[in-house]
Amino acid sequence: MAREDFKIDWKIPEPTLRRLPWYLAFVKLLKGKGEVFVSSTQIAKEISVDPSQVAKDLSFVNISGKTRVGYEIVTLIDVLENFLGFTHQHKAFIFGVGSLGAALLQDSGLNQYGLDIVAGFDVRKEVAGSTINGIPVFHIDDFPARQKVYGATIGIITVPVEKAQEVTDFIIAGGIKALWNFTPFRIRVPEGIVVQNTSMYAHLAVMFNRLHSMN
Amino acid sequence: MAREDFKIDWKIPEPTLRRLPWYLAFVKLLKGKGEVFVSSTQIAKEISVDPSQVAKDLSFVNISGKTRVGYEIVTLIDVLENFLGFTHQHKAFIFGVGSLGAALLQDSGLNQYGLDIVAGFDVRKEVAGSTINGIPVFHIDDFPARQKVYGATIGIITVPVEKAQEVTDFIIAGGIKALWNFTPFRIRVPEGIVVQNTSMYAHLAVMFNRLHSMN
Repeated sequence: MAREDFKIDWKIPEPTLRRLPWYLAFVKLLKGKGEVFVSSTQIAKEISVDPSQVAKDLSFVNISGKTRVGYEIVTLIDVLENFLGFTHQHKAFIFGVGSLGAALLQDSGLNQYGLDIVAGFDVRKEVAGSTINGIPVFHIDDFPARQKVYGATIGIITVPVEKAQEVTDFIIAGGIKALWNFTPFRIRVPEGIVVQNTSMYAHLAVMFNRLHSMN
Repeated sequence: MAREDFKIDWKIPEPTLRRLPWYLAFVKLLKGKGEVFVSSTQIAKEISVDPSQVAKDLSFVNISGKTRVGYEIVTLIDVLENFLGFTHQHKAFIFGVGSLGAALLQDSGLNQYGLDIVAGFDVRKEVAGSTINGIPVFHIDDFPARQKVYGATIGIITVPVEKAQEVTDFIIAGGIKALWNFTPFRIRVPEGIVVQNTSMYAHLAVMFNRLHSMN
């Protein structure tokens, strides 16, 4: 798919982008059940989001519903997947092939959502040169050379927390444009670099606190 | 550690609980560098959070700083780890030992943060009976019997999206109190059940959109 197919809009709010995959997951389920149309009210009810919010979120996507029947499910799925970038493969590197990094290399499910992990990097000589799930692992020193070959835009950061900032600076200098940070460290990046934090530990902290509060 | 050690407080806001692990990660780094004291201003600056927010967040934790020098780092780490529940092992089951579920079983890093994954469950007969990273995988039908043995409180949901709600209902009926949902489906739970959603796809959607907007 050509880059031009993407509607370029800086103004899509992050919360909208985070909710659209929920709507996509739900309408895919409906499709599996043989449904043909879905209304924003129906999505709202199932997802527990306000109906006006669903309608507003979907207004960012180039699709129009029909009065009374709503959106055609097949079209809505196509448009959402395309809009969210899931139909287009984005090359990514994993930095830090420890426990979590190796686990992510083994998870081939992200591929279906447009994430193509093409290589891993680690400082440990015994890990460099291996392959995990068919994906090669290189020494971190080889990153600049490998980047010339692969041209990855996304860096997944699974290094030990004390190395998070150093690795961030190094890979941005080498051309990485977006960072998916799995460490609990708040990395600092120059303007124009995209960061998403997936903090497993933050989710654990919330779960543990709520569990203890219940007893 | 006894349950009574936890300060029971329903009123800790979720954003505070999500930020505290960042502070913890940062002060652990300082400790590694040989620092002895840290101020909330210093934390705020490094983490890019407003100083008054850091002070407010830390006010939920039972620790007091000293004028001018701030908090003693060793004490702050102990208190935060204890407060967040990271020093206490919480038994968890993984439901769905596919690509992501198997990957999480292989990630032993979560153990250091108080998550003790004791078993996995799957519907596939060829997976049941195996072990991954020393952790046994059982058939989903065995969950009620295994729950009697293990008494897990946390369920990690990595089943296919179309099974998310069914599995949720089944495991809550079997005594699971908190759900860590990795599927893109918005599961519905009864009041008093804790849910945390880690949506990898939502993070990908944001990254892809911002990347495309840049070009």
